[in-house]
Amino acid sequence: MELAAIGATESGGVNRQALTDRDGEGRLLLLEWARQANLEPSIDAIGNMFFRRRGQDNDAAPVMTGSHLDSEPTGGRFDGVYGVLAGLELLQVLHDAKIETLRPIELVVWTNEEGCRFQPGCMGSAAYCDPDRLAQFLETADADGITVDQELQALRRRVPNLPEHPLGMAPAAFIEAHIEQGPVLEANKSTIGVVSGIQGLRRYNVVVDGEAAHGGTTPRATRKDALLQAVDIVSALRDLVQDPEDTIRFTVGRFLVSPNSPSVVPARVEFTVDVRHNDAATLTALGKKILETCVASAGRCSVSIEPVSLVAPVVFRDSVQQLIRDAAVRQRLSHFTLPSGAGHDARHLAQLSPAGMIFIPCLHGISHNAAESVEPEHLAAGARVLAEVIIELADSPKLTLA
Amino acid sequence: MELAAIGATESGGVNRQALTDRDGEGRLLLLEWARQANLEPSIDAIGNMFFRRRGQDNDAAPVMTGSHLDSEPTGGRFDGVYGVLAGLELLQVLHDAKIETLRPIELVVWTNEEGCRFQPGCMGSAAYCDPDRLAQFLETADADGITVDQELQALRRRVPNLPEHPLGMAPAAFIEAHIEQGPVLEANKSTIGVVSGIQGLRRYNVVVDGEAAHGGTTPRATRKDALLQAVDIVSALRDLVQDPEDTIRFTVGRFLVSPNSPSVVPARVEFTVDVRHNDAATLTALGKKILETCVASAGRCSVSIEPVSLVAPVVFRDSVQQLIRDAAVRQRLSHFTLPSGAGHDARHLAQLSPAGMIFIPCLHGISHNAAESVEPEHLAAGARVLAEVIIELADSPKLTLA
Repeated sequence: MELAAIGATESGGVNRQALTDRDGEGRLLLLEWARQANLEPSIDAIGNMFFRRRGQDNDAAPVMTGSHLDSEPTGGRFDGVYGVLAGLELLQVLHDAKIETLRPIELVVWTNEEGCRFQPGCMGSAAYCDPDRLAQFLETADADGITVDQELQALRRRVPNLPEHPLGMAPAAFIEAHIEQGPVLEANKSTIGVVSGIQGLRRYNVVVDGEAAHGGTTPRATRKDALLQAVDIVSALRDLVQDPEDTIRFTVGRFLVSPNSPSVVPARVEFTVDVRHNDAATLTALGKKILETCVASAGRCSVSIEPVSLVAPVVFRDSVQQLIRDAAVRQRLSHFTLPSGAGHDARHLAQLSPAGMIFIPCLHGISHNAAESVEPEHLAAGARVLAEVIIELADSPKLTLA
Repeated sequence: MELAAIGATESGGVNRQALTDRDGEGRLLLLEWARQANLEPSIDAIGNMFFRRRGQDNDAAPVMTGSHLDSEPTGGRFDGVYGVLAGLELLQVLHDAKIETLRPIELVVWTNEEGCRFQPGCMGSAAYCDPDRLAQFLETADADGITVDQELQALRRRVPNLPEHPLGMAPAAFIEAHIEQGPVLEANKSTIGVVSGIQGLRRYNVVVDGEAAHGGTTPRATRKDALLQAVDIVSALRDLVQDPEDTIRFTVGRFLVSPNSPSVVPARVEFTVDVRHNDAATLTALGKKILETCVASAGRCSVSIEPVSLVAPVVFRDSVQQLIRDAAVRQRLSHFTLPSGAGHDARHLAQLSPAGMIFIPCLHGISHNAAESVEPEHLAAGARVLAEVIIELADSPKLTLA
């Protein structure tokens, strides 16, 4: 709740978008808490922050846990924050109890998971796992033309003198705790979600170029109305994704009109298309049809479409899923295995090392919304399962996770 | 061109929206020019600025001319500015030539003609002609929550110590020169447009309320997607206005989505509907159908619709049209009589006094666009016709305009 006060909105939610001053304030508060638990902070080239607790063998790859502190403009109090604070609590408890694990444990805060201010989302974990993407991410600008690089410099002024953490260092394993953001655990009356994988995502930016004209004098026949054309394109895309099973997730979430004046025929519309599915082949086919549909619906305007994210579905290793399931069983917590509908940083980490996720239920599956809400006992249960899994991994000299 | 430098855009146009700092700079420059011509400046409660040249009988109602200095975000260099500077030139010439008219002549700059930052447009002339609307206009806020009242205070600090001009004082007549903003004069190879009237306008704000939700986890069946619903509504409205004669002007010019984030199902869309027609009965019937269509297309969302402007078509008096036509004939300028598709401040003035408008051609009818362009000889021809009409009116002891 202390973190939720930073960027708190009137409606009870949080607006703490990536690399804003609010995001910086949140990180600063975490840094203070981490220092109280004697953790060693560091920062990498994309602004991911790490808090390391030493082990007996400090040359061994660390076990990593964490999530993100940035939110959507209409975010809730738990999305991302929960995974960070569950990891912090584990490290505080180890510190207080003076328990030493074999391997070091690193708590991580990934930069810009949401991808609302700067695209794509999961930017920090993507750059960490594939440092070749760093240069392009640094140049990425928000709607006001401010770049990631500029904001990272501001962040570093806020948290000066932190040691550099290298990109691309593979942990022994990465485990992320998170609220489900969907209705499955609630419907199944289960406390612990064993996440089987993450659904694939394709995100596109579509630009429709027409011609600005006076709305009072220009006949319909001579208009090139970018808004009416965008309306046609979105309608056609919606028709395309009407699967009877309701498994395709299709969202046009951002839609910007210019000049956006009541009496001016719109010259340009830019909008995003976000489409997700668990099946890689279905998603690839959808992507192809989306491109075709946008071009075919251009009318008198010109349409360009650019992929922003093309992420295949991820399947988490059975062995990691089993560790989580076993911990839940030992703690007599109900559990349910499910795929994640939302994207998470663990998606990228799974390319680098064994990875897994622990979900807890959230009220009616609502998130990215001020009404996001979680039961305190579920928060505690998820943190206990996370602690058991992390400690088990951190005490394993050899990790042979199938 | 000096005025066009204030708020100049990279593409060669002008962004000098109402009551911005740029608008203030433009007014300040005009004030300086007006003082050189010995005009007496004043300002009224809505920020309209007046520049009076005394006549022989200073108790007589003045003849008024002018237009506006504010622009659209993607405005051109001539829309509005032309009418102000043509009037200024006339007064400079009278000053230089030491000609004294019977009546005073007032040059006026109306506040917020465009209505893009603060709605409705023609706000200054509307408040001048109907002072009861002042209080509501002062409270009107822009997208950032800044009110007209706040910006008027800033304007007054910029031009301090100007005498107050009362609202509602009827001039002997009002004549406004303006670029056509349509293709008719160019197509007819005519230099002077005698404006027969102004088409009626209905503008609505439509708000579609859905529910923010996570784009990756929320099934289609449980979404209340405000954007997809708004797309349906705009499609239905477009079908409604498909007249084969292409005389209905229908524009959805402003369209705002929130939270406007790629992975969040939009919770709310606000958009404007601007519909215009020369025939009052057609326009009234359209307005009714627009309301019905918005409500009928609400789907799973809730829709509210609020009228912002309901303006009946205006017909300018024959006698005023004839004065303009006669002046054009005497100056051997080709002329053509046409209605105005765009709204203008003369619309409101026609309720208070005899009023009329002089159009000159603009390239391909383009306006509200950086490409707006006018031939210098047309600018000069329009100014000469304006001068002749204004002087004729200002020297008439009794105005009996049918």
